[in-house]
Amino acid sequence: MNLLNDTIRHIEHADEDWRLEARKHLENLTMPRWALGRLMDLAVDLAGITRSLEPPVERKAVVTMAADHGVAAGGVSAFPQVVTQQMVHNFVAGGAGINALAGCVGARVQVVDMGVAGDLSSLGDSIISRKIAFGTQDMAKGPAMTSSQAVRAVEAGMEIAYEMGKEVDVFGTGEMGIGNTTPSSAIVSVLTGDPVEDVTGRGTGIDDERLQLKIDVIRTAIRVNRPDPDDGLDVLAKVGGFEIGGLAGLIIGAAAQNKPVLIDGFISTAAALIACKIAPESRDYMIAAHRSVEQGHRHMQEFLGKEPMLDLDLRLGEGTGAALAMNLVAAAASLLTEVATFDQLENHE
Amino acid sequence: MNLLNDTIRHIEHADEDWRLEARKHLENLTMPRWALGRLMDLAVDLAGITRSLEPPVERKAVVTMAADHGVAAGGVSAFPQVVTQQMVHNFVAGGAGINALAGCVGARVQVVDMGVAGDLSSLGDSIISRKIAFGTQDMAKGPAMTSSQAVRAVEAGMEIAYEMGKEVDVFGTGEMGIGNTTPSSAIVSVLTGDPVEDVTGRGTGIDDERLQLKIDVIRTAIRVNRPDPDDGLDVLAKVGGFEIGGLAGLIIGAAAQNKPVLIDGFISTAAALIACKIAPESRDYMIAAHRSVEQGHRHMQEFLGKEPMLDLDLRLGEGTGAALAMNLVAAAASLLTEVATFDQLENHE
Repeated sequence: MNLLNDTIRHIEHADEDWRLEARKHLENLTMPRWALGRLMDLAVDLAGITRSLEPPVERKAVVTMAADHGVAAGGVSAFPQVVTQQMVHNFVAGGAGINALAGCVGARVQVVDMGVAGDLSSLGDSIISRKIAFGTQDMAKGPAMTSSQAVRAVEAGMEIAYEMGKEVDVFGTGEMGIGNTTPSSAIVSVLTGDPVEDVTGRGTGIDDERLQLKIDVIRTAIRVNRPDPDDGLDVLAKVGGFEIGGLAGLIIGAAAQNKPVLIDGFISTAAALIACKIAPESRDYMIAAHRSVEQGHRHMQEFLGKEPMLDLDLRLGEGTGAALAMNLVAAAASLLTEVATFDQLENHE
Repeated sequence: MNLLNDTIRHIEHADEDWRLEARKHLENLTMPRWALGRLMDLAVDLAGITRSLEPPVERKAVVTMAADHGVAAGGVSAFPQVVTQQMVHNFVAGGAGINALAGCVGARVQVVDMGVAGDLSSLGDSIISRKIAFGTQDMAKGPAMTSSQAVRAVEAGMEIAYEMGKEVDVFGTGEMGIGNTTPSSAIVSVLTGDPVEDVTGRGTGIDDERLQLKIDVIRTAIRVNRPDPDDGLDVLAKVGGFEIGGLAGLIIGAAAQNKPVLIDGFISTAAALIACKIAPESRDYMIAAHRSVEQGHRHMQEFLGKEPMLDLDLRLGEGTGAALAMNLVAAAASLLTEVATFDQLENHE
């Protein structure tokens, strides 16, 4: 718990003075006032996050955390659990959606085994192994993990953020885990108070019957476990997942280093909610990359007070939306560094 | 008129067979069906446009066409006309918004003088000069240009598309011209039949009084000139602008070469409407880059049947939205070329 507590103490809000400086600079650019709208808002955010009018954004990484879920045994997903492992192999081979999209923006993909239900040792150093267990327990029957596993998952994410942070300016979150929209819906329902049926969607594509089963499973998990909505670690332990805990830690670790972190889709945003509960200031360092098709994502983003940058009907996860939005981060930063001001134009003439 | 007529005869619809092939391929990628949503739709469009499952998207250029407008004398803009020239100098010096954003996606910016009211010869080869006249006439008093000027403007755009097309895979449209939201609103009102007040906005930022003046000027221009809504060249001549005609030609020229063209904001989309009227098949080659803040842009995009890729409250023009969306084009193409299919995964095991 030491790392967790030390890190939380470390995080400050984004810097208001740097935000103000950035705003003043952007209002003096050679264009009508605030004519690049939300890209300018993002530039202000980046200045406040990094304490700089030249926010470093060159070195990008998407951290894709994988884990399995005991609750998947209950038939909440359209895919069998073994697909989690198969996709980890696909990530390492470079053949997944995230590999293509990260490649387009020059971002590295770092795969992390947080708790896949299978032996991934053959992958060696091509992934980071922080396996907490071979999948969580079935949350419909009891806690998904122990309190100490929850702490270990979050601390693992923080450690990865610190280690990678030596060579990364901008983080993106990604995940893979068959069944993981189920704990994510449970988390958002517990933390926002929204009814389970309003925040539960079709994930990878389940039919009406399975959707009703999924809603019932989530209701059961919340009733059985009674997670405390004021305690992020308790919610994570009772109805969360190892990759969700790891990503919450990654987000908090990025925030503690004054680095922006692009939050991907539904599962990543569940991790962001947990991060926000554990360390509220970490919210300032989050950039909502996109609005997922998954029902409930809107509820999460409204709870966080974040408007997504993109809305392209994505529902893949892996970090794909975060990768796509990295180009917008680079574009926003370039407004601070590459565009002439009216002062410069007048001096030039 | 020969080039214009020859080119129009040349354009075919995007290829349905290639679209179908792309769709089949994408449905076999290692992810839930259509999990990357609109990015996959865009990949299908690119396959149909380029007749390829490996759409060339590497070489990108934003063509920013500048011209002045007689109607600006009527006080419809918040900025004086001389700003058009000043901004052309700024583009060439690399200090404008479009330079920064094109730089972020590795796109070249090609500035074209279609009819700026000033001598730009000092800029030499750093711009393309196709100046039709030193600004249009005041459309509130008569036609903005002659019929032959309208043809020359469109043909100039086509010629630029053909010449640049030797080294460009993806085009983006951009423009600069003080007062040019006024002819753009006139064009959309004439072509869609929507009332002037519904499609007229604040441009670079005018107050209520000036907005009413602008609406009155546009109504007068339409009443005085009686443009024929079934004749794109007539609409262009009577209530258009030289950069709008040039961009219409650029779009048609891109289409004739089976190349995608990203349509930027309000003025660029007015040019797209003209292009669509002159050569309806050119519509298939257009990608709506973003949704502008400018009132009326939605009307235009609905008329074209195009859903924009981005919605970031931009209202700058210059091609900035087109540049931002170029990364999405590259990302969409990478889905066709970089992602493994389930067949490949099975063969691999």
